[in-house]
Amino acid sequence: MTDIQVRPATDADFHAMWTIFQSHLAEGETCVQDGVTSREDARQYWFAPEARTWVAVKGGERILGMVRLRPNQQGRGAHVANAACMVSPNAQGVGIGHLLGEHGMGEARRLGYLAMQFDFVVSTNSRAIHLWKRLGFSIVGTLPKAFRHRRLGYVDAYVMYKLLEDPARWPLPEED
Amino acid sequence: MTDIQVRPATDADFHAMWTIFQSHLAEGETCVQDGVTSREDARQYWFAPEARTWVAVKGGERILGMVRLRPNQQGRGAHVANAACMVSPNAQGVGIGHLLGEHGMGEARRLGYLAMQFDFVVSTNSRAIHLWKRLGFSIVGTLPKAFRHRRLGYVDAYVMYKLLEDPARWPLPEED
Repeated sequence: MTDIQVRPATDADFHAMWTIFQSHLAEGETCVQDGVTSREDARQYWFAPEARTWVAVKGGERILGMVRLRPNQQGRGAHVANAACMVSPNAQGVGIGHLLGEHGMGEARRLGYLAMQFDFVVSTNSRAIHLWKRLGFSIVGTLPKAFRHRRLGYVDAYVMYKLLEDPARWPLPEED
Repeated sequence: MTDIQVRPATDADFHAMWTIFQSHLAEGETCVQDGVTSREDARQYWFAPEARTWVAVKGGERILGMVRLRPNQQGRGAHVANAACMVSPNAQGVGIGHLLGEHGMGEARRLGYLAMQFDFVVSTNSRAIHLWKRLGFSIVGTLPKAFRHRRLGYVDAYVMYKLLEDPARWPLPEED
C-alpha cells in the first residue's frame, strides 16, 4: 500500500474508471446500473457537476478504484453526502475500498457534509457491507427485493448511513 | 369528490403545479427542495423525460394536486417506482392525497412496476406518513437528521415502501 495515493480524479482518468465500472456492470451483482449503461451515462455518474471524485492510483499511473461524493438530496437534504465507491476486480481484498472510504469520509467532513450515505448497497454484497460497517456505517433501511441480481434474481438493497459528527455539535441550520 | 378527476398532467398544467409546489417550498417542512428551487428545476422534477405525472382536477379546471412516478434507480433497480405527491394547501384534508396515491399505485402496476417507494418522507409530516400507511406502505428506513426542517432544525426522514404484488408472483428477471 506504500505506493498508492488517493488524488482528485481528472478527465484523463476516465478511461481507466470506465474499464473498472464496466467490469462491475457486466458482473451484475453490486451496481444498480446494468450492462446497457453508456459511456456518457458513466461519465455523468462519476463527473456530474455537483460531484467530487477521487481515484486510488498505484505507482503514479495505475487506477485501482474511485470514490465519489455528491449531495444526497437538494436543498434541505444537501447536508448529507451520497457516496459511491468502486474497486478494480484486479485489486480486491488489499484494502483499496477501505482507503477510498476513509478518504471519502475525510473529504466529506472537509466539504461540510454532516452525514454520509450509501443509498443502495446490495444485500448480498457482503464485502461492501462489512467494509462500510468497519468504517462506522449502519444499515438504516432495507428495500425489499429492490435489486435485480444477475444470478440470484430479486434481492434486498440496504441504505447505509453514518453521522460524520455528533448532531449535538452540528452547526445550527441557516435561517431561511 | 364527485367532480374531481385524475388525468395525465400536461404542460398547460405546469403553472398551477408550480404554484402548489412553491407553497410547500416556502413552508419548508415537507419537501427536500428549498425556497431557491427554480421554476426550471421544478419543471424538470415534475416533467423529467422518464417521469409520468398526473393531476387531480376539480370541475375540469382547478388543479388540486399531483402525483409523479419515475424509476427509483436505473437498470437493476428500475422495477421500483419512485413516487412524489403534492396537494394544494387549499385542498388539504379532503382526500386528494389518497385519491392521487391510489391512482399512482394503479398506474405503477399498469406500467409494470413491482414495488413503489417514497424515498424521503419527513418524519414530522404525520399527515403523509398516515396516508401512505393507510395505502399499504411501510417505513423501511430511517435517515437520521437527514432533513433540515425550517422550524424544527434537523429531523429524520423515512423511506416508505410497498410491494405492489407478492414477490412469489413477480415475473422472472429477464436474462442479461
